[in-house]
Amino acid sequence: MAGDFSKLMNYARYVASEVDKVINEVVEGEPQKLYEASNHLIKAGGKRLRPLALVLSGRMYGLDERVGIRAGASVEILHNFTLIHDDIMDKDAFRRGVPTVHTVYGEDMAILAGDLLFAKAFEALGRLSGLVPADRLVKAFRELAWAAVTVAEGQALDMDFERRWDVTLDEYLLMIYKKTAALFKSSLVMGALLAGAPENEITNLERFAEGVGIAFQIRDDVLGLVADESVLGKPVYSDLKEGKKTVLVIYALSRLSTNEKKKLISTLGRRDASAEELKDLAELIKSTGAVEFADDLADKHLKQGLEALNRVRPVDHEAKDLLRDLALFVTARNY
Amino acid sequence: MAGDFSKLMNYARYVASEVDKVINEVVEGEPQKLYEASNHLIKAGGKRLRPLALVLSGRMYGLDERVGIRAGASVEILHNFTLIHDDIMDKDAFRRGVPTVHTVYGEDMAILAGDLLFAKAFEALGRLSGLVPADRLVKAFRELAWAAVTVAEGQALDMDFERRWDVTLDEYLLMIYKKTAALFKSSLVMGALLAGAPENEITNLERFAEGVGIAFQIRDDVLGLVADESVLGKPVYSDLKEGKKTVLVIYALSRLSTNEKKKLISTLGRRDASAEELKDLAELIKSTGAVEFADDLADKHLKQGLEALNRVRPVDHEAKDLLRDLALFVTARNY
Repeated sequence: MAGDFSKLMNYARYVASEVDKVINEVVEGEPQKLYEASNHLIKAGGKRLRPLALVLSGRMYGLDERVGIRAGASVEILHNFTLIHDDIMDKDAFRRGVPTVHTVYGEDMAILAGDLLFAKAFEALGRLSGLVPADRLVKAFRELAWAAVTVAEGQALDMDFERRWDVTLDEYLLMIYKKTAALFKSSLVMGALLAGAPENEITNLERFAEGVGIAFQIRDDVLGLVADESVLGKPVYSDLKEGKKTVLVIYALSRLSTNEKKKLISTLGRRDASAEELKDLAELIKSTGAVEFADDLADKHLKQGLEALNRVRPVDHEAKDLLRDLALFVTARNY
Repeated sequence: MAGDFSKLMNYARYVASEVDKVINEVVEGEPQKLYEASNHLIKAGGKRLRPLALVLSGRMYGLDERVGIRAGASVEILHNFTLIHDDIMDKDAFRRGVPTVHTVYGEDMAILAGDLLFAKAFEALGRLSGLVPADRLVKAFRELAWAAVTVAEGQALDMDFERRWDVTLDEYLLMIYKKTAALFKSSLVMGALLAGAPENEITNLERFAEGVGIAFQIRDDVLGLVADESVLGKPVYSDLKEGKKTVLVIYALSRLSTNEKKKLISTLGRRDASAEELKDLAELIKSTGAVEFADDLADKHLKQGLEALNRVRPVDHEAKDLLRDLALFVTARNY
């Protein structure tokens, strides 16, 4: 399903640079150190895929691109808040190739920087007042609040799963739906809501986002097992060290012999595991066919998502085509 | 200025119990442990003064009390979020007479519980959709976002001041305006905005809230120096242990001799200071007349606030009288 993403990439770069201008405007103030900490991760990069999804979704139903970009800044700010707090909880020292916020500024400041960004996400959305009808803006506010609630619930599940060995595939899928797919879904829905799109269109967009969001996270889990540090922007095997119950681990646990399972359990989640132990663990998981299983599962969800997108009836067909490209791009097997 | 607060107290109890019903409805869900942690501090008590202020402010301009109560739940949820995160940063082990959230559930869960409440505050406000005109609700959303931004900025100043010895009175006043008065201000403004009150009324309410909020925090600082544990709901002298630059400390630093100042600096902010050392420090601060200075300063701000309230022209005069009582009650000298 790989294709030519050059058109998408060009548009993505344009949207990202416009979104960043808005973020710069919104995440600016005093005290200086708080704002520095809040901007640290934002400045480290990121593809701004959620704003892109929002802009394209809005465009499909005639939303002014400038409005989409401003709303996109809001979801990107919210996304960065979740990353800062997740990194504290997961004790991750690197992200996007740079030290995480709490590593540089300390945990207290990182908590506060996340809180500030959380608030700024809602401030950014509020700045659309006067540019879109108030009833649509209220719907967008409610959608953003729903996403923030759901992402927190997803993170709680993720943390709880670290201490459990009986996590089922369905529980995993619910967790990644909440932790990853929900904000992607809300980005698309916010674009459509701000444009005043019909109800049934929004339902199809939700199905699309759900499929793509889940497929994206499954691929990301695989990437964590097979990619190297330069691709990940963080140390390899951090999922294994943190005891994350990825789809790969869940599948492997269901396939391994009692002895192999013991071996997996004895290493997974051990922060002090050596590079060699982690490599062995990764090989053990791969030996079960977990990667192939995960790839098939991602393909299935992606397919369902694309089918839902096919049912969408936009006014701007180019935007729909780009959204399809975006889905294929973020779920491509880069390994 | 002490008076008979029985009418206010009765109404406060009624509003608090109605607000709590709404909070129960909103802060409910799964995973169970996350919601337990999120409800821990809420269930421990609190007077729900911000919701009361919002309800009264709304009533002054004809807002349905039920709507005020729902919006009040939103600001109370936001307030509890800030307390949970502040307690982590300040390493406070007790609040409202119970162990703090991070003490019971661990820091990671406390971060997440705060995040969930933050999101739930916006969800709660969004539930007013259909009950008030959308343009007013958008204004309320923007006000709540402003408060959340401002409280984070205030907390950053407070933390920064812990490491500084040259904090001025003006810097202190800006900090407590942001950290304490801002959310009280936004509560009053949200009530008025939801009721569709005129612009100049809102300006007077802001001045009122500013004066009362600042007076309240100054009294709270004094209470931290003179009250005992049963009144505070937390260990005495925690401000001193944490090195907080309260108005008392700032005043004392400006009055003490070089030697006394050295003594103050050597104990203030030392987490391992003994009970005796802390008591000596408190006496040293009191000996400068800091309490009297703080009381006068609180009186001055309260007076300015009440003058602004006098300029308010409500349709419901009982609500205005109760708001005046509320101001006197929260700034009363309980020492």
